[in-house]
Amino acid sequence: MNEKINIMVGGPEALIPYDQVADHRSETWLGVDLGATRLLEHGIVPEYAAGDFDSSTPEQLARVKAAVPKVDIYPPEKDYTDTQIGILLAMKYYQPASITIWGTTGGRLDQLLANLYTPLMEPYRKYLAKIHLVDRQNTVDFYEPGSYEIYKVPEMPYLAFVNLTPVTGLTLPDEKYNLDHFDSSLPISWSSNEFVGTINHFSFDTGIVAVIQSRDVHSQGSFKGVK
Amino acid sequence: MNEKINIMVGGPEALIPYDQVADHRSETWLGVDLGATRLLEHGIVPEYAAGDFDSSTPEQLARVKAAVPKVDIYPPEKDYTDTQIGILLAMKYYQPASITIWGTTGGRLDQLLANLYTPLMEPYRKYLAKIHLVDRQNTVDFYEPGSYEIYKVPEMPYLAFVNLTPVTGLTLPDEKYNLDHFDSSLPISWSSNEFVGTINHFSFDTGIVAVIQSRDVHSQGSFKGVK
Repeated sequence: MNEKINIMVGGPEALIPYDQVADHRSETWLGVDLGATRLLEHGIVPEYAAGDFDSSTPEQLARVKAAVPKVDIYPPEKDYTDTQIGILLAMKYYQPASITIWGTTGGRLDQLLANLYTPLMEPYRKYLAKIHLVDRQNTVDFYEPGSYEIYKVPEMPYLAFVNLTPVTGLTLPDEKYNLDHFDSSLPISWSSNEFVGTINHFSFDTGIVAVIQSRDVHSQGSFKGVK
Repeated sequence: MNEKINIMVGGPEALIPYDQVADHRSETWLGVDLGATRLLEHGIVPEYAAGDFDSSTPEQLARVKAAVPKVDIYPPEKDYTDTQIGILLAMKYYQPASITIWGTTGGRLDQLLANLYTPLMEPYRKYLAKIHLVDRQNTVDFYEPGSYEIYKVPEMPYLAFVNLTPVTGLTLPDEKYNLDHFDSSLPISWSSNEFVGTINHFSFDTGIVAVIQSRDVHSQGSFKGVK
């Protein structure tokens, strides 16, 4: 199987684009802790629910147990974040073509950064290129060194390249703002760039780069086209 | 002079802890773009306002010009983020003992990361240890290699150490969860740690570490004690 896996975790609810979630309804869903409850509330029954459920009320947990086919309860003070539990579930039970994670942004910065850095770590690293983070204002994709074609997400006017680690050779040849073989030992967020057309390219030689497409909150319309 | 400088920028308004802002009212304030308008709306007249003001209406800009002693208007598509403009103002006109930046978190991840990484870059780097980011849920301090005493911010139950760059020797000797000379070539957010008591210690040999104190949104009470 090459399934499209979606993971709902328990980040700030206001940041979750439920219109987009609905578009992915027919794919496979996993719910972590409060994320499982949120899926049920939106008419999606996840195949698995997992977590320590310390963010869920006893009533919410009971509802999850009654509705979800498989529920794994972890001890509290576990060694994994909710996002990591979700990815571990996806790795264990599926051969995912993509892992899209919803509800993983906003709120506590330490948690947001832990989620952003998780795809770089073992054992998640082998899925790095398949992991996508989505919220109402942002989509995040992760890249190992190489040359890539990237596609504009409709409704997202801004494009950013973030070297999460030291990088060498970062080249942006055909975006609004270009770079030519840029090396940096420090992390940098090259923010507020833009697509020229709907397909652009970039490449780099070493390190890990996140590509973020984003919009301001006052942008109009629902956004479509998250892969 | 060794002034305490506060910079208000134009990030998501819901994340700005105005009760805390009020406690810093007697210190020096700078407003960038919409941040200047926000300060005026909360009864604080900044010493300087700056920016391209593309996030402000003509009426807001006119009000800023009428009320603020010094206003620097930058061209749009400038080379600086709003946070960087604020720090440049602080560096140019003051010898700051501390630079506390408000309104710099949330919303677009590319902007949040650009703000988080700015203190690591030249020419801001020399102020790295003096820069503090504050929002309703988080305080962020930045550290060069060394040994440090850290102080608990009341109302913030969570403590995190984030190696924003490769680090060596990260040691957490007396927190709830400890580390002993941990080396990592990848960025890691060691999230959800906690103070034991109100003073703890940490040290590291190379790299840059951010210390984040945070709380969940459902935590009770206003939070006090931001330095």
